[in-house]
Amino acid sequence: MAARSEKMKARLPRGLVDRGADDIRAVEKMVATIREVYELYGFEPADQPLIEYTDALGKFLPDQDRPNEGVFSFQDDDEQWLSLRYDLTAPMARYVAENYERLPKPFRSYRSGWVFRNEKPGPGRFRQFMQFDADTVGTPGVAADAEMAMMMADVMEALGIKRGDYVIRVNNRKVLDGVLEAIGLGGDENAGRRLTVLRAIDKLDKVGADGVRDLLGKGRLDESGDFTKGAGLDEKQISRIEPLLGRSAYTGISNSRSKVRPLVGRDMAEDDILWVENSIGSIENARLSVVDSAVGCAGVDELEQLYHLFEAAGYGPDRIAINTSVVRGLEYYTGPVYEAELLAEIPNEEGKIVRFGSVGGGGRYDGLVSRFRGEPVPATGFSIGVSRLMTALKNLGKLDTSDVIQPVVVLVMDKDTESLGRYQKMVADLRKAKIRTEMYLGGAGMKAQLKYADRRGCPVAVIQGGDERANGEVQLKDLIEGARQAKAIADHAEYKEARPGQVTVKEADIVAEVRKILDAQKADREGE
Amino acid sequence: MAARSEKMKARLPRGLVDRGADDIRAVEKMVATIREVYELYGFEPADQPLIEYTDALGKFLPDQDRPNEGVFSFQDDDEQWLSLRYDLTAPMARYVAENYERLPKPFRSYRSGWVFRNEKPGPGRFRQFMQFDADTVGTPGVAADAEMAMMMADVMEALGIKRGDYVIRVNNRKVLDGVLEAIGLGGDENAGRRLTVLRAIDKLDKVGADGVRDLLGKGRLDESGDFTKGAGLDEKQISRIEPLLGRSAYTGISNSRSKVRPLVGRDMAEDDILWVENSIGSIENARLSVVDSAVGCAGVDELEQLYHLFEAAGYGPDRIAINTSVVRGLEYYTGPVYEAELLAEIPNEEGKIVRFGSVGGGGRYDGLVSRFRGEPVPATGFSIGVSRLMTALKNLGKLDTSDVIQPVVVLVMDKDTESLGRYQKMVADLRKAKIRTEMYLGGAGMKAQLKYADRRGCPVAVIQGGDERANGEVQLKDLIEGARQAKAIADHAEYKEARPGQVTVKEADIVAEVRKILDAQKADREGE
Repeated sequence: MAARSEKMKARLPRGLVDRGADDIRAVEKMVATIREVYELYGFEPADQPLIEYTDALGKFLPDQDRPNEGVFSFQDDDEQWLSLRYDLTAPMARYVAENYERLPKPFRSYRSGWVFRNEKPGPGRFRQFMQFDADTVGTPGVAADAEMAMMMADVMEALGIKRGDYVIRVNNRKVLDGVLEAIGLGGDENAGRRLTVLRAIDKLDKVGADGVRDLLGKGRLDESGDFTKGAGLDEKQISRIEPLLGRSAYTGISNSRSKVRPLVGRDMAEDDILWVENSIGSIENARLSVVDSAVGCAGVDELEQLYHLFEAAGYGPDRIAINTSVVRGLEYYTGPVYEAELLAEIPNEEGKIVRFGSVGGGGRYDGLVSRFRGEPVPATGFSIGVSRLMTALKNLGKLDTSDVIQPVVVLVMDKDTESLGRYQKMVADLRKAKIRTEMYLGGAGMKAQLKYADRRGCPVAVIQGGDERANGEVQLKDLIEGARQAKAIADHAEYKEARPGQVTVKEADIVAEVRKILDAQKADREGE
Repeated sequence: MAARSEKMKARLPRGLVDRGADDIRAVEKMVATIREVYELYGFEPADQPLIEYTDALGKFLPDQDRPNEGVFSFQDDDEQWLSLRYDLTAPMARYVAENYERLPKPFRSYRSGWVFRNEKPGPGRFRQFMQFDADTVGTPGVAADAEMAMMMADVMEALGIKRGDYVIRVNNRKVLDGVLEAIGLGGDENAGRRLTVLRAIDKLDKVGADGVRDLLGKGRLDESGDFTKGAGLDEKQISRIEPLLGRSAYTGISNSRSKVRPLVGRDMAEDDILWVENSIGSIENARLSVVDSAVGCAGVDELEQLYHLFEAAGYGPDRIAINTSVVRGLEYYTGPVYEAELLAEIPNEEGKIVRFGSVGGGGRYDGLVSRFRGEPVPATGFSIGVSRLMTALKNLGKLDTSDVIQPVVVLVMDKDTESLGRYQKMVADLRKAKIRTEMYLGGAGMKAQLKYADRRGCPVAVIQGGDERANGEVQLKDLIEGARQAKAIADHAEYKEARPGQVTVKEADIVAEVRKILDAQKADREGE
């Protein structure tokens, strides 16, 4: 063992997290529900490794201001560069390209797993996080994009998120690309300015339409006095973008949210009033923006088709809305993009009460598999941010894991082989009856053992000293009831002995008697 | 899109694997069973990130003949070295050390996840693989090690592995260390030779006791004519090690496997005859080896205590056997080590019929948390190799995933909005009834759509063209029955029309009619 002076410091690296039992169980519960929806839609599980050749992953991450461009990379012994995946889409594209001939087309798959970003860590920004994706490869039509948006909506409701507490927003990269091209920001040489414009639009929720206007022009001074330099567009250019933000100088049409009575027959009580977004208004305004751009017009036509598909399938704007201000960060998107937004005002990862915002999204990426194949391979898919969504669901009270019962603890009062054998038999019998049980193995005295049981939240302690052993008996201590009584006395609250805190029972009856206490505790919990 | 000439090659990096639906489902099923056992024993889920500071992981990997010592490493932007974890134990030790004060002691946790080895890939050797661990931190006594070995035995049986098809073998590093010290191989300067000796012992299963003898001495010539240089021990040194291999020149006691009638009352039929290992013989022989070594004697005493604990708890040598030839590779073990071995002769990853061998193991690592704390923190735990065990279970027929039903496919015959709406409604209705369903979105004709459905193994195709739509009907094609009939005709086998391959039904009855076909298919499967 290292001497005290040379001992190493145990430190979790920045931007990474250790997860405890509660979070792990909550994620498992949530992931199982999401998986059920994906399976119901006919998607199949698939899985790629966490490491890929760097060049196969490509450079599609947004906001690259760090030298190694957002990914963790290392060189293999044959000098080739490897990287940790930054999402699940790029490795999937590599897999499909490599196994194209033997896969059914369309190839419908889902996958969950850790992805990594070599970013400056900050509050709510992690360098390892979990995504849960679904993708359809091999379908060019917007019906496949529509299915993705509908599946996201179904996932939200399967997780218990009420209609009106979420919306799936749909836009089309072609609309944004068309407008940018039309105002003279096409071509590789304008990539940087395009990015500034897209970032400005992406801030609509935070700074409002006027704020975005400033960011598109000279710049914006925020309340704290900080100045953000703008994209430097002129009035004419800005006026072409503005309709995409939900208001138009030309038509006065607003596509902002409004309270409406939802269409009857949508599985809702007739008198529910919901916020919905104005899909039609959004599409009409976008037409003004894209007017002389062929790609832009094609984009708006696709949005209109999507709108009709959603309506036909019964997914109105209270569930899926066309919204031309949606910008998804990844650079590989080529068509429809979609985003799942939580509208409920709940605490975010930093504890602030806010409209929670995006919990996932995706889009069409027709170029990603094609890079490897040299032939068109259309594809669309989305990604759910597992940890973010889990935080939201916990705050909405939708991920209750309180049905997990901690183990019964058999205390170790004597350590001779005979006693240990008896304790071990109790443990084995309880486990056989599917009751979580452990024998205390820490080597401490009775008081410390009970303190341990308390700390673990154990429901029952089993105690057998020499006298009980001689009588073939055990003592069962109801730790939940004991804690309640202790608290009542400490609070000077009304003391009511609902159950005895401790009973002596025959050793042979241990399973039945422990079960009795667990059942009583369960009835108490459910009565609360 | 890249031109054909510049297109990139899609390649899975060496030593990594893409997993398909079958393997993923098999692993999920297996992991759920293992988790149930861990939970029943009172362990709690916990989870560390995949990246740690390199120095926190330490250098404990066996067989390091590569420059970067077996781990994938990269430098952070603050110049600190980070590594991908090579096991789940070292990160867990970092976590416990960092959060020591607030954790209950003993800290009992389990975790599963990917680990990475920067090794030369080869058949059955992967650079990313999954482990599933359980650990108890804070218990010095061998009772905690005994619990681990018993839990491994319970895991094996929970997975359906018959008694006699597996054994948990238990040894103690102190025995090996004691003997090595006694024959003059103590100290840092002999680390290399100790490793050669341990590697030789580790080959017992492959080369037999005579082979190990050669490897301990001058060296060994194998059947192919290859010569492996030995550890260069003299006769006297070898004779001290030999009893650990299961035979002794002094006593004639053998601890090799023999057929015995198991003790009555062990949950087995009385007339079962099992192979068991001779724990008592193993312990007696080890006493001869360690005779003048204090640490060695302490090790044998612990093995004897373990033996009595196993006997008292009803885990005889048909489940857990003391076997002093067990060497676990990781260098951090300090006391008891244990290994789960599959004795069944089944195909391994390379397809060869062999006694499958180790599927997991672990041991006591009292120094791993202490490195950070500067105070003793005893700990013990084990690791299951998930992919290896999954391969074994599949070959034993214990991981049947044939209960997964592929989706019903609704063909897309017409693409106008009204037709798409009708198809979409069928899909939604079937999904509401929890029947996996997808609408074909690939844009191909009917023949190609049916081929797709066939390739996916879909049970039913739903077809509605213009005529059926006008009549409010759909055609249901039973693809499983259809394939059976087609095969019977092709084989000139007796053709028996058990069910009609295709029926026309009312569109309103689609759920009930599809359910009827699925039920008939299920009855067929179960009748087979």
